Amino acid sequence: MAVTQSDLANAIRALSMDAVEAANSGHPGMPMGMADVATVLWTQFLKYDAADPHWADRDRFVLSAGHGSMLIYSLLHLSGYARPTIDDIRNFRKLGSPCAGHPENFELPGVECTTGPLGQGLAMAVGMAMAERHLNAVFGDDLVDHKTWVIAGDGCLMEGINHEAIGLAGQLRLGRLNVLWDDNRITIDGSTELSTCEDIPARYAASGWHVTECDGHDFESIAKALENAAGDPRPSLVRCKTVIGKGAPNKQGTSATHGAALGAEEVAAAREALGWSHAAFEVPADIADAWREAGKRGGEAHTGWKNRVANHSKAEDFQSRMAGDFADDGLSAHIASLIASPQKIATRKASEIALGAINAALPETIGGSADLTGSNNTKTKDQSPFTRDDYAGRYVYYGIREFGMGAAMNGMALHGGVIPYGGTFLVFSDYCRPAIRLSALQQTRVIYVMTHDSIGLGEDGPTHQPIEHVMSLRLIPNLQVFRPADAVETAECWALALAKKDGPSVLALTRQNLPQVRLQASENLSAKGAYRLRAAQGDRRVILIATGSEVEVALGVADKLEAEGFGADVVSMPSWELFAAQDEDYRESVLPTVDPSQILRVSIEAGSMLGWERHTMVQGLRFGMDGYGASAPAPDLFKHFGLTAEAIAPKVLAEIRK
Amino acid sequence: MAVTQSDLANAIRALSMDAVEAANSGHPGMPMGMADVATVLWTQFLKYDAADPHWADRDRFVLSAGHGSMLIYSLLHLSGYARPTIDDIRNFRKLGSPCAGHPENFELPGVECTTGPLGQGLAMAVGMAMAERHLNAVFGDDLVDHKTWVIAGDGCLMEGINHEAIGLAGQLRLGRLNVLWDDNRITIDGSTELSTCEDIPARYAASGWHVTECDGHDFESIAKALENAAGDPRPSLVRCKTVIGKGAPNKQGTSATHGAALGAEEVAAAREALGWSHAAFEVPADIADAWREAGKRGGEAHTGWKNRVANHSKAEDFQSRMAGDFADDGLSAHIASLIASPQKIATRKASEIALGAINAALPETIGGSADLTGSNNTKTKDQSPFTRDDYAGRYVYYGIREFGMGAAMNGMALHGGVIPYGGTFLVFSDYCRPAIRLSALQQTRVIYVMTHDSIGLGEDGPTHQPIEHVMSLRLIPNLQVFRPADAVETAECWALALAKKDGPSVLALTRQNLPQVRLQASENLSAKGAYRLRAAQGDRRVILIATGSEVEVALGVADKLEAEGFGADVVSMPSWELFAAQDEDYRESVLPTVDPSQILRVSIEAGSMLGWERHTMVQGLRFGMDGYGASAPAPDLFKHFGLTAEAIAPKVLAEIRK
Repeated sequence: MAVTQSDLANAIRALSMDAVEAANSGHPGMPMGMADVATVLWTQFLKYDAADPHWADRDRFVLSAGHGSMLIYSLLHLSGYARPTIDDIRNFRKLGSPCAGHPENFELPGVECTTGPLGQGLAMAVGMAMAERHLNAVFGDDLVDHKTWVIAGDGCLMEGINHEAIGLAGQLRLGRLNVLWDDNRITIDGSTELSTCEDIPARYAASGWHVTECDGHDFESIAKALENAAGDPRPSLVRCKTVIGKGAPNKQGTSATHGAALGAEEVAAAREALGWSHAAFEVPADIADAWREAGKRGGEAHTGWKNRVANHSKAEDFQSRMAGDFADDGLSAHIASLIASPQKIATRKASEIALGAINAALPETIGGSADLTGSNNTKTKDQSPFTRDDYAGRYVYYGIREFGMGAAMNGMALHGGVIPYGGTFLVFSDYCRPAIRLSALQQTRVIYVMTHDSIGLGEDGPTHQPIEHVMSLRLIPNLQVFRPADAVETAECWALALAKKDGPSVLALTRQNLPQVRLQASENLSAKGAYRLRAAQGDRRVILIATGSEVEVALGVADKLEAEGFGADVVSMPSWELFAAQDEDYRESVLPTVDPSQILRVSIEAGSMLGWERHTMVQGLRFGMDGYGASAPAPDLFKHFGLTAEAIAPKVLAEIRK
Repeated sequence: MAVTQSDLANAIRALSMDAVEAANSGHPGMPMGMADVATVLWTQFLKYDAADPHWADRDRFVLSAGHGSMLIYSLLHLSGYARPTIDDIRNFRKLGSPCAGHPENFELPGVECTTGPLGQGLAMAVGMAMAERHLNAVFGDDLVDHKTWVIAGDGCLMEGINHEAIGLAGQLRLGRLNVLWDDNRITIDGSTELSTCEDIPARYAASGWHVTECDGHDFESIAKALENAAGDPRPSLVRCKTVIGKGAPNKQGTSATHGAALGAEEVAAAREALGWSHAAFEVPADIADAWREAGKRGGEAHTGWKNRVANHSKAEDFQSRMAGDFADDGLSAHIASLIASPQKIATRKASEIALGAINAALPETIGGSADLTGSNNTKTKDQSPFTRDDYAGRYVYYGIREFGMGAAMNGMALHGGVIPYGGTFLVFSDYCRPAIRLSALQQTRVIYVMTHDSIGLGEDGPTHQPIEHVMSLRLIPNLQVFRPADAVETAECWALALAKKDGPSVLALTRQNLPQVRLQASENLSAKGAYRLRAAQGDRRVILIATGSEVEVALGVADKLEAEGFGADVVSMPSWELFAAQDEDYRESVLPTVDPSQILRVSIEAGSMLGWERHTMVQGLRFGMDGYGASAPAPDLFKHFGLTAEAIAPKVLAEIRK
């Protein structure tokens, strides 16, 4: 008997319910509901070669509704990827299995991005589609010509980021992006009617999308809709009308299938209803073979692509870009020129000048800002806009979409071939914090240019003044947070951010001008995380540790202490993470472990003081902000909040004279 | 010559450009562009009494586009509010003036909420409109019958939160909410065409809104549109077609007017163009009088309302609710019953039980969840849903809208008369972090119920496991963060959250069961922030400090240390903020300042360790998470990451035996 599409789909259903059952935890409803749609996509439309998950010109598949992770694990396994094996699936949600509760790009090739935090998968897919069009514009159809497919649920569509993501995709007319919406009318709390009356297709149409639909359990209807989607020059939303948990006779169509194992009885009933008589985790040979054939469908296209690459003049360049490698970031000459003629400029301006050098040297950078181009100084004059009419452009006007920007940058970085950076005010890092966390978790090279990094922004007041932000970003694992003190450190930090292939960076930059404190040619001192900027002249009684704009303040404090006969080191600490990564000898050389009564440590940073005890010890002094800022010119604020050398020096003196 | 509407509007324009000019910083474009619309609203539609900004039944006016703050300062001043005075306006954006860069509710009565972070003003207005309908349902038309008006710009509409906010408003059919959209086709980066092609009216219609429009510089057209909006049973979007910076002859219609002073020359040209011959900050008497008359328009309605209140059976109840006062939170008996029969339950479950008592005692609570009702345990069985058909309901199905929920809760709390609480997973506090920050800055009593507070949630894996979240929330000024250790502490923390009228609280709660560690009747010990839960039996060599689920671990470590002859205190620390607020004697009694070689301090918390140096000192030991979690059952994870008594005790022993 010939293997039918239903058989293929039921293999997904069976693996999904069996794995969730074995884990006694997980989400069977989505994989069972979308099994038919996914089968059509993966056997007829998606361009991939299971033998080579890293083929650069593969279609990207994003399971935005990441809780339905058994769908993608089933698809990867059945279509013949090396992993997950059936044992991996048997160990779904157990320690050591790559089949985690939610799909993780760092666990399994074929998982293009880490999903689960709702809405972000689709928003990252927008970035993937942007990267594809950009590389196509640069390298041509022979090397880059693929689509991005997304499966999303109601949660992904209800999240705010969906509005930002589809607005951006519509504006950029990303026709190769196709979103399959699992329209099952169920959320965790119950019917979607509990929380929404939205006409979703109308909203997508309002954002410049093409909308089509299908019966998600009718294979012909599905195929026709996917064909429509693939052919339309606009991004497409395919409304797939489905039944959640399809196949579980007593629970399907209800939220009971969403996030819990079906239970042995219902699993047995589902096997009966589906006519699936095989044991748990067993896929009969004919169905397994048919799936593996589907996984080889792309082989011919892959071979054709390899042949084109072999003879292509741009092949080498393309491949090194996809590998994320580059020879020279272009910054050395710039730093040399700063040493030759020091600049008193804001670090946001210093960043712009550094970017001038970087963007000239590295064609892979794609910049942008969430509608603060002139404030973030993210656009260099040679950058033309990335638009629906010119995908070769290297500057994205993201609009007032901080979170959408962060997610799009993640998608671009995951796609490969480009290095995205984007700007907003540091206080609005909160708006894109979930994307920053996913950059860090996913190990993507994304560079966040966050300007206006303290009360130093002045008059805009407390709503715009970061207080807790620098420290709270330092808390995110695998995120490099830089707060450079001058134009030289800014360039150094840019070099470090670009060099980190496996993680994101945040550059916290000032609005206000800062004197250049680095005046001698040297190695990249910021790479140490912290270093002695100025050594004590007198007997060392104090070590002043500061970041960013407060390094200038620390130098002023040191002057006053030295004038009173107390030696004071000034340590600039642009990156806590990099300092922590140094060996103990180096760390001791900068911050020696000495009784505080002999050498007092003092921190100065115009932000939260909680956390600074790590470097000052509890017995040291910390100067910073213990509440919100205020609206006034910056110099007035620094004075008001006691963050000047005049205010700090007497307090340090009082302490050491105790 | 009679004062015209143009004269009234030009007074706003003049004050706005003069104030920005004097500050040499600010945003003249929006106030000048929306001056005509605002004039019609404030002289013909808005129900208010400038003599009493706190009148409970006033219409709420929200300037969501907060950067255009001079618009509301002008309106308040001109219509006769006591503040801002003309001197306040002269000192716009200077230290000490209540006229901050962005409008702040804690600076000026009449500023209903703090705006500037885009999108949140409109989203808070949704919450205000919800509170109004709820109180109307409870207290009737005689006491509560008002509207909420919003002025929003393109930025507010492009932010993701806008999608969440209008989806919620449409679902709840908040017909008394009217949004005036300043459709000036300009953002900071330039034309809106740079970043969006959206059909905004179509999107609003798709979310169940009524949409109308006007020429924003034609007074009749404006009045007609506002009348349409006021009369429609759906929430209304009024598209006001305006020219940004209207009146500045050379700069109007361009982004040059958005965020910078016009310059002396252009201000002079604008005076000429507007026919405004008066000196800076000078409003001629006839225009000033006409404005003040408008500010008294609501006086009669106010008197009528006072008369109704005077004779109303529910007046006392209504007024104490609006004052935010209550007599008894209902928790004492619940805590007594826990002491009588201890419970081993998850703190999320403990929270549900506490809420049972609270919701019965306090009719002002309105609960909800962002589609995680059954997981957050936020709904008590007596709560019926708050729906378009039943505004008396006290449970909101917010949908998958964490940020929208946070903002709506802020709006409800600002409106007064209700105490909102709402749930999501702690990891998704990132999604609503900008709203949490605004709760703290605005001093609103909003209670965030954040469950699944560590790797203890188990199989959902790293995307769902908070690591940095508890610590990063502790960094936000004026936010109370609670991580209770058992059912008793959970109830205590609820009592403290409810009692704090001037700020928000976060409750970080477990998914997994915890033994009850508090077995004796006592005062509210959580109110101290930290307290000695168990005193050392042997000579005290160690103080173990833990929070939440790790208090159980700390007790296990203490057992092992005592068994080896080393005395160990166990300190439970549910709230860092409250501990910091205790006097030094108390803090010393819990954590005495003693050389670490005599008493070692050890922290145990399944989250970031950065920050814990404050309590352990650098010389102490810290146990926590230094990277992301993993997907597996919770007990496996605690073991894997070394957060068990078995793993920790030997390390502590090794340290004290050094």
